[in-house]
Amino acid sequence: MPRIAAIVGGGVIGAGWAARFLLNGWDVRVFDPEPASRARVETIIDNARLALPGLGDVALPPEGTLTWCGRMSEAVKGAEWIQESVPERLELKQTLYRTLQEHAEEDAILASSTSGFTPTELQGVSNRPGQIIVAHPFNPVYLLPVVEIVASARNAPELVERACDTLKSIGMAPLRVRGEIPAHVADRLLEAVWREALWLVKDGIATTEEIDDVIRLGFGLRWAQMGLFETYRIAGGAGGMAQFLAQFGPALEWPWTKLMDVPKLDDALIGRIAEQSDAQSGHLSIEELERQRDRNLVGIMRALLARDWGAGRVQKALDATRAEALAIPLRLDEIGDLAQPVPTVERAVPLDWLDYNGHMTESRYLEVFGQATDQMMKLVGADEAYVAGGRSFFTVETHIRHLDEVGAGAPLSVVTRVLAGAGKRMHLWHELRSGERLLATGEHMLLHVDLATRKSSLPSDEVAEALGRIATAHAGLPPVEGAGRAVGQPL
Amino acid sequence: MPRIAAIVGGGVIGAGWAARFLLNGWDVRVFDPEPASRARVETIIDNARLALPGLGDVALPPEGTLTWCGRMSEAVKGAEWIQESVPERLELKQTLYRTLQEHAEEDAILASSTSGFTPTELQGVSNRPGQIIVAHPFNPVYLLPVVEIVASARNAPELVERACDTLKSIGMAPLRVRGEIPAHVADRLLEAVWREALWLVKDGIATTEEIDDVIRLGFGLRWAQMGLFETYRIAGGAGGMAQFLAQFGPALEWPWTKLMDVPKLDDALIGRIAEQSDAQSGHLSIEELERQRDRNLVGIMRALLARDWGAGRVQKALDATRAEALAIPLRLDEIGDLAQPVPTVERAVPLDWLDYNGHMTESRYLEVFGQATDQMMKLVGADEAYVAGGRSFFTVETHIRHLDEVGAGAPLSVVTRVLAGAGKRMHLWHELRSGERLLATGEHMLLHVDLATRKSSLPSDEVAEALGRIATAHAGLPPVEGAGRAVGQPL
Repeated sequence: MPRIAAIVGGGVIGAGWAARFLLNGWDVRVFDPEPASRARVETIIDNARLALPGLGDVALPPEGTLTWCGRMSEAVKGAEWIQESVPERLELKQTLYRTLQEHAEEDAILASSTSGFTPTELQGVSNRPGQIIVAHPFNPVYLLPVVEIVASARNAPELVERACDTLKSIGMAPLRVRGEIPAHVADRLLEAVWREALWLVKDGIATTEEIDDVIRLGFGLRWAQMGLFETYRIAGGAGGMAQFLAQFGPALEWPWTKLMDVPKLDDALIGRIAEQSDAQSGHLSIEELERQRDRNLVGIMRALLARDWGAGRVQKALDATRAEALAIPLRLDEIGDLAQPVPTVERAVPLDWLDYNGHMTESRYLEVFGQATDQMMKLVGADEAYVAGGRSFFTVETHIRHLDEVGAGAPLSVVTRVLAGAGKRMHLWHELRSGERLLATGEHMLLHVDLATRKSSLPSDEVAEALGRIATAHAGLPPVEGAGRAVGQPL
Repeated sequence: MPRIAAIVGGGVIGAGWAARFLLNGWDVRVFDPEPASRARVETIIDNARLALPGLGDVALPPEGTLTWCGRMSEAVKGAEWIQESVPERLELKQTLYRTLQEHAEEDAILASSTSGFTPTELQGVSNRPGQIIVAHPFNPVYLLPVVEIVASARNAPELVERACDTLKSIGMAPLRVRGEIPAHVADRLLEAVWREALWLVKDGIATTEEIDDVIRLGFGLRWAQMGLFETYRIAGGAGGMAQFLAQFGPALEWPWTKLMDVPKLDDALIGRIAEQSDAQSGHLSIEELERQRDRNLVGIMRALLARDWGAGRVQKALDATRAEALAIPLRLDEIGDLAQPVPTVERAVPLDWLDYNGHMTESRYLEVFGQATDQMMKLVGADEAYVAGGRSFFTVETHIRHLDEVGAGAPLSVVTRVLAGAGKRMHLWHELRSGERLLATGEHMLLHVDLATRKSSLPSDEVAEALGRIATAHAGLPPVEGAGRAVGQPL
């Protein structure tokens, strides 16, 4: 039975939550009385279908079912998770919770996307305050992992823990805020920057575009991967943070830190900002900006995945968990029928793998085959520990036939045959499909190497034996069409 | 004659400047009386040699010469650019400028890396105030493009323009700050965040690691590519910035924006921050953190390069300029001897192309060959405009022989032969080298396609004619060793 999430409020944030739950296999029920919200939610889910499935290197579970509900009672009944993302007015939220709790399950988690209110404020006069917590996400909710979890003394620790576990299972990184303060952690930082940025625009020191450039060509790149303190730790050199504080701490009392009034957001300032922002970004529609943003974010997060760092580390851990649910054998004894080709990859096409022809670019075919080859190496025992021990396999020759195209978000799977596996050699045959459709074949010759001398060498007895077992079992399969072929050779 | 830059002050920032100038072909003279600085500068230049050459898709000019100077006069004499990066004490800088200007050329640009002082303050009592400006970079200076340029009324506009042009030529994105204020633009924003972060740590709302995670798993990812205003513009939906301001502006007057005192950085707070930072990052040395940071930044910036966005757009424009200086023909009539293989790629191995075996991973070989194929397409007239017009070439078959390994920052070049080019077919042979060393060969069959029907079709007459000319000229070359080979076929 799929788990059920109710999304109350179908704005940009609610829609992002709907997309994240849905693409992680939950059934999702959305309630929003505003007629325009349905189209918006569906657009955002479509964007997410391009971006989220290929974010990691492992396939997502099958998508759940989306239901549009005419009444809130219908949406929340039977739901395990209820996410409220209505406008930031305390009375509105409190009133809504009263109605909602009449129909919600008693053990459901009722999480608010509020960026400002504390759980104590939200729980207000509710009869079941214990099920109400803050789960504040960041736009786009279907891509950015962090979510601020804030609880009050009225929330049972078990419920908070369950909330965190649930959010982790849909790919998020819940951050437990240690106290109830207005605006939690992130928006405190964001407000401070926003305040200062308004001053800079008002005083004509920089335009909106110039401020954005200072950020995204400078410290924004640092913050995407290390944040504030770790970046400054480096600046402190070998003395670390204590040295940094000794060196730069006094700047805190420099004159510019005194300029902290709240600038009045009058019509003149609003007009100036809106005009500068139009000059900066007005040539792109919001939809175009969203698509650009998603491509950028997927590219950045996948770069971090390759480094097992920051947002990429979150994704890597998630991929490892998800891999267990797939039909891909992780050990030799998990292979059902040794005489059949081995499933080695189940994933989707990342948004950043497309080229100017609008389809997955050629080198990514080899990247997928490389993933399949790595999986075969692991299966025969040439895993991370084996490589760390100084031995590996290197690809020496590759032949790819590109048979069909594929677009972003589409599922990819590879099955692999061992054409030969004896001595130093491992000769593999990969078939790449999207669903039933054969996209490409890859024929690869690998040599076992000693990583110290960088010369070919014999594998360990265990690896040789495992590889030999599969090769022998696969020898009984009918010959593959296309193996041993040269480029341009007639069929 | 290489241009000469003098680096006065060899701390982390000065070393970063030295690396950036040096790797962009300038001769660099460093002056720093502190004995430890030489080793630090050399380490940072070594880090830059891994990270910077492969940041773009086009080779850097040959590296300049690094000279270590025992006296400041020796360093600055004859230098076109003098970069001062000494500690942030105004009297120190003013005194240093007096000595320095006695030996510097009158038309040299004397740029200060100061993050706090205004040009008027720095120019102080100098006899030649007009040559002193602020050029405030971000660490790591050799990777992050933005540099804040601040001038006073005493700087000639021509000098400021020359400074910006010079910085652009070494891959930077100079940002002209429109007024002289303490701490320019970026550090005003950074100080505001820093202040708020100190409060959060002091009040026990979040640890240094939690604050870093909120940033790098959340809004830091947004800021790396869009910054503050463009991100909020999206949040405003179709109404753009004006709607965002109407909706969220009032939050500026919410209570949390009143908490703006400067927290006292006493021993207790310093101790807490240092301890939390140790718990967070103490398992990695500063050198390890720097290496991780560089890998992350290169990965992120290259992801943005592929999207032609933000820092990637800066790099793309730079690559286009640099491509003109290479021996790679951009048009058919630029090919010197049509009967010889065509140079199609000159670049370096990006830091994010390595795999667990410590060398360029297999799929990146195909990525380089893909770049070479794209270049051949452009040469025969199948360029961006041609593709936009609805026609292209798709690779249908690839055969790669991986003959040797290569590491980060190493130069890569490809020369290409047209084995056949008639009808719908383009049959290419690429040879990939690092210096003289042959790393791989790539044999590729491409078919011309109609992008509307996604079926093969004949190219335009112009493309067919250009391709045919090269194919005919290359037909006279001796046969290539390895073409027409199948995987595992004995030599």
